[in-house]
Amino acid sequence: MRIGILTAGGDCPGLNAVIRSVVHRAVTHHGDEVIGFEDGYKGLLDRRYRPLDLNAVSGILARGGTILGSARLERGRLAEACENAPELARELGIDVLIPIGGEGTLTAARLLSDSGMPVVGVPKTIDNDISATDRTFGFDTAVGVATEAIDRLKTTAESHQRVMVVEVMGRHAGWIALESGMAGGAHGICLPERPFDPADLVKMVEERFARGKKFAVICVAEGAHPAEGTMAYGKGAIDQYGHERFHGIGTALAGELEHRLGKEARPVILGHVQRGGSPTAYDRVLATRFGWHAVEAAHHGRFGRMTALRGTRIEMVPLAEAVTELKTVPQDRMDEAESVF
Amino acid sequence: MRIGILTAGGDCPGLNAVIRSVVHRAVTHHGDEVIGFEDGYKGLLDRRYRPLDLNAVSGILARGGTILGSARLERGRLAEACENAPELARELGIDVLIPIGGEGTLTAARLLSDSGMPVVGVPKTIDNDISATDRTFGFDTAVGVATEAIDRLKTTAESHQRVMVVEVMGRHAGWIALESGMAGGAHGICLPERPFDPADLVKMVEERFARGKKFAVICVAEGAHPAEGTMAYGKGAIDQYGHERFHGIGTALAGELEHRLGKEARPVILGHVQRGGSPTAYDRVLATRFGWHAVEAAHHGRFGRMTALRGTRIEMVPLAEAVTELKTVPQDRMDEAESVF
Amino acid sequence: MRIGILTAGGDCPGLNAVIRSVVHRAVTHHGDEVIGFEDGYKGLLDRRYRPLDLNAVSGILARGGTILGSARLERGRLAEACENAPELARELGIDVLIPIGGEGTLTAARLLSDSGMPVVGVPKTIDNDISATDRTFGFDTAVGVATEAIDRLKTTAESHQRVMVVEVMGRHAGWIALESGMAGGAHGICLPERPFDPADLVKMVEERFARGKKFAVICVAEGAHPAEGTMAYGKGAIDQYGHERFHGIGTALAGELEHRLGKEARPVILGHVQRGGSPTAYDRVLATRFGWHAVEAAHHGRFGRMTALRGTRIEMVPLAEAVTELKTVPQDRMDEAESVF
Amino acid sequence: MRIGILTAGGDCPGLNAVIRSVVHRAVTHHGDEVIGFEDGYKGLLDRRYRPLDLNAVSGILARGGTILGSARLERGRLAEACENAPELARELGIDVLIPIGGEGTLTAARLLSDSGMPVVGVPKTIDNDISATDRTFGFDTAVGVATEAIDRLKTTAESHQRVMVVEVMGRHAGWIALESGMAGGAHGICLPERPFDPADLVKMVEERFARGKKFAVICVAEGAHPAEGTMAYGKGAIDQYGHERFHGIGTALAGELEHRLGKEARPVILGHVQRGGSPTAYDRVLATRFGWHAVEAAHHGRFGRMTALRGTRIEMVPLAEAVTELKTVPQDRMDEAESVF
Repeated sequence: MRIGILTAGGDCPGLNAVIRSVVHRAVTHHGDEVIGFEDGYKGLLDRRYRPLDLNAVSGILARGGTILGSARLERGRLAEACENAPELARELGIDVLIPIGGEGTLTAARLLSDSGMPVVGVPKTIDNDISATDRTFGFDTAVGVATEAIDRLKTTAESHQRVMVVEVMGRHAGWIALESGMAGGAHGICLPERPFDPADLVKMVEERFARGKKFAVICVAEGAHPAEGTMAYGKGAIDQYGHERFHGIGTALAGELEHRLGKEARPVILGHVQRGGSPTAYDRVLATRFGWHAVEAAHHGRFGRMTALRGTRIEMVPLAEAVTELKTVPQDRMDEAESVF
Repeated sequence: MRIGILTAGGDCPGLNAVIRSVVHRAVTHHGDEVIGFEDGYKGLLDRRYRPLDLNAVSGILARGGTILGSARLERGRLAEACENAPELARELGIDVLIPIGGEGTLTAARLLSDSGMPVVGVPKTIDNDISATDRTFGFDTAVGVATEAIDRLKTTAESHQRVMVVEVMGRHAGWIALESGMAGGAHGICLPERPFDPADLVKMVEERFARGKKFAVICVAEGAHPAEGTMAYGKGAIDQYGHERFHGIGTALAGELEHRLGKEARPVILGHVQRGGSPTAYDRVLATRFGWHAVEAAHHGRFGRMTALRGTRIEMVPLAEAVTELKTVPQDRMDEAESVF
Repeated sequence: MRIGILTAGGDCPGLNAVIRSVVHRAVTHHGDEVIGFEDGYKGLLDRRYRPLDLNAVSGILARGGTILGSARLERGRLAEACENAPELARELGIDVLIPIGGEGTLTAARLLSDSGMPVVGVPKTIDNDISATDRTFGFDTAVGVATEAIDRLKTTAESHQRVMVVEVMGRHAGWIALESGMAGGAHGICLPERPFDPADLVKMVEERFARGKKFAVICVAEGAHPAEGTMAYGKGAIDQYGHERFHGIGTALAGELEHRLGKEARPVILGHVQRGGSPTAYDRVLATRFGWHAVEAAHHGRFGRMTALRGTRIEMVPLAEAVTELKTVPQDRMDEAESVF
Repeated sequence: MRIGILTAGGDCPGLNAVIRSVVHRAVTHHGDEVIGFEDGYKGLLDRRYRPLDLNAVSGILARGGTILGSARLERGRLAEACENAPELARELGIDVLIPIGGEGTLTAARLLSDSGMPVVGVPKTIDNDISATDRTFGFDTAVGVATEAIDRLKTTAESHQRVMVVEVMGRHAGWIALESGMAGGAHGICLPERPFDPADLVKMVEERFARGKKFAVICVAEGAHPAEGTMAYGKGAIDQYGHERFHGIGTALAGELEHRLGKEARPVILGHVQRGGSPTAYDRVLATRFGWHAVEAAHHGRFGRMTALRGTRIEMVPLAEAVTELKTVPQDRMDEAESVF
């Protein structure tokens, strides 16, 4: 079998572990040939690829990033690819394409699959918001980085009797904020899933100070937004759904709290640190398993599917199922978090 | 409600996170009173306990160990407790006991429960070998520590063209060896679940050297043992099942490989480092969720059960179910690992 | 002897290690009594203090922050304290005051000392800019945090062919930027010590891309500023010395580079994460040694001095010497860094 | 100029950082050519080397081990090399040899230098026992790994009221034990520099238990040994100096303490984990500076010398000076450590 593999979308710890696993399983067990397309779908369309043997993937398991590079693709070019997908596969000589990516990548994968390209997808997002799988690799690493930051900020907040607002990744789903907030012992968590009222945070901080805990750390997803009209100081922009949105919610919220509380409140924006670097053991194992199962699925002709963690097992789910809706944080998970604020 | 809590058995990162979560949920949400027994069941029988309020659990989320202490209990004393379990609960004034522990602790919990003590258990083991739950807290931390060690050892092995044998915890189940071996990219993994033949490892090392990879790292669970008669150098003791066992299998195996290969092979025994220290974010979240659900179960009168992770949900499973059989590494998980050696 | 101790100024990993060391050495070896003032000099003036015995400092060695709290002091109140320093010491019953702090704290210490208060200082700053000592504790931890961030960002930058600008702490001296930039392998470092020209960075990035290294990471101290008139896009404010300064130089520089290069350039502002959390082993050792020598100096009546690292030895230097000039990054250290860009 | 470089002796985090720094400085600044000999002096004698350009050292800064490999050399072959050192240099076309290594490597470097080979040495040892330099790279990483292990073990020891004996590296000098013991807050430290009496440790543990601290951690250098006749249980072997030595002092001491105290005492042997893996920021900076200065020294014809850290500066010291005596832990450093037990 000749397998093509590519990585697309944002950086995510564990990508290299998938690539390595695919190559090992395919080459060693099945005697397959593997080629890697450069810079995502671009490399597929531009015929930029290189052969991947055991040596090519040596030493990459613990490394962040992706040895294949990644890039965004214009929609027009994808449509073009879909028009003659079977010919493209034939021309490249690949029996299956394994794209590793997030929602956009998997949607593209589905379109290619529907157009006749044999495809097995591997989901990837540090946001953990793909509904068909219990978890995605990269998420554990991102949560770990954010948690370590909160651990560090707590000592500073406490020593200086200060409020800290930590903005973590999560534009549409608040999983990173939820889990790093819980793990770091944040005293407030704001998610995109439900608008928050700064007044609630003010009350929490004042109650803490009243009982002698003269500091607080609040963990905010970058996509969180206040309930309309609740931010007294400063105004946000109105988005396409009519919601008031603040660009840089961490900074806006820290300002709001400082005004209302009359105490120092400092924002910390973690940014891209969350999506780079060596993956945790959890993510390396999950990524390795995904790679293994993607190769097996290819050999069993289970195309149009992607790998998914279900409990302790890896299953193959239809791509169609995977990308229909975003997995957001349900209310009961938020209830669990709130009780330990 | 008045809740008694205790921690028993070996150290496990995340114990304090459970205690903190139980106290927060019980006190803040339900207005309960919580007392903590010292040194496991001993404190229960000796009436050694202290009240646990929010201040008592402040700052412990990220700390390893257990603020309540832990100790082994003689069987005789447990039997005694079971004889008058309801009276004991009444005397202590507790409406429910939440024991956090491993197989032994949960078995004791079940006996107490059967004897009339209202009990809600929380499973704990770094070995991850409790069958009723997908994962236990502490395991992720142990795997993380072992993986970091393997990462470090690989550079040394490579620079010195050497074979390294890393012995990790896992007496009856090889989960730590499996996952840290996969995550660290070990070239061989030996589990208690199936006897290994040193000849296979010798072959693997020789093949690696032949293709220019002049080093190897082998990850061995402390409970792993060779197939009978396969260790040519040195003899093990025969255990109760008639198996040949080596005390300190890591050291024995390194010696065996050094003899057979004529190359340096060094053992590294990770030991207790794996079970102490600050828990990973994953373990803190799981432990916090377990604590929350234990309190809820108590308030819903769901006694005789323990918390369990099933997929992404926490469920309450009968204690009877939890302790019947050990969760060992199935063959398909081992297959996944082998393909990336 | 009765020793008073206080921590003042910004948070700095290792403060607790000094406190612990002072208490251990004083109590165990000399049979002294130690009291800790709360919230820096404020506690001294407000007579807010608590006794510190071995139990009070148990378990704090590895913890960030300061168990005594810290706060800024108004100048007026300090002047007032200096007027009757000997009386104040007598009233509090302290034979020596050990203030742990940065430039401001040590200047205050010197004034108190000149006014008749027996003082032994301990220098503290994550910025490492106190000239009388080779190194200060906290610096190593800050560099470690920043280096880990750069390690992570490099993989993301590489996978996405992107320029990353990391802003680290260092308002007046660029030590953190210098060492984390060297340790992380940054491709450009901007320090407060000498104005930079964005054109040089543009050239460096273009040369890298030209030889196939399609990413770059630039490490900028928060106090770095461009040579006048060199930032083509956007304008800074003119400071008291007539220099053009940009608030948020990391963000400003990323914007500038994006404009000039026509490539994505993203800022990451590490912020307070650098000054909190568990100190590195290096900082714990240095802080512990400083505490030990401060107590010995007190017992030898060597007042008006502070602890300083000179080579491998701890020496006592006059406070007057310590605070006269800032230790900035000399040109030869910058030369060393530049050769590995 | 044509520069030859090699790494010899045990693994040490920072070796790759030196190699990278030498190549960058030499190639970029001076336009030199650099070749790397494989497996230490063996590669020199066997003419096994490869050219090192910027690409060859890309991405190695943060990686442990050495890309050049390392190996022991038989004395005979070295003597042979010394006989015709100038011819060897001429034949290889190298204008200078930069060997990076410990005592043995530097002694060999000195012999080669005395025989007419232009040599500039770079000292390397995780043990920090080279007298001519304040510190060596690798040491900080080793201390960091050992400290993290002690941090972890303390929670386990405390939860189980147990004594832990941690054996760290250091055959002839106790620097790692000293600094990781101080940084980890060990309650006893045993060094090769002075024989210990187990009775002192027993007393310390009993005093701790008496005041309610029911655990202890003891940090032992692998080269530490008891004062003669003080180990009551078990007997050591007599070494060439007539001292009683125990193979595996950590294990022997734990056994001794368990017997005497009647409490569990467990050994943990950290082993090779201490010398592998990614170097700390401190070690990367020091290694990079050493590489830079080695190249400059070569260009200034300062042969027969090695790089050394003196305070904050890198100086060039005669190789003769460097290897005359071991830098051991002086009594005053031990005094500092003892006060915080």
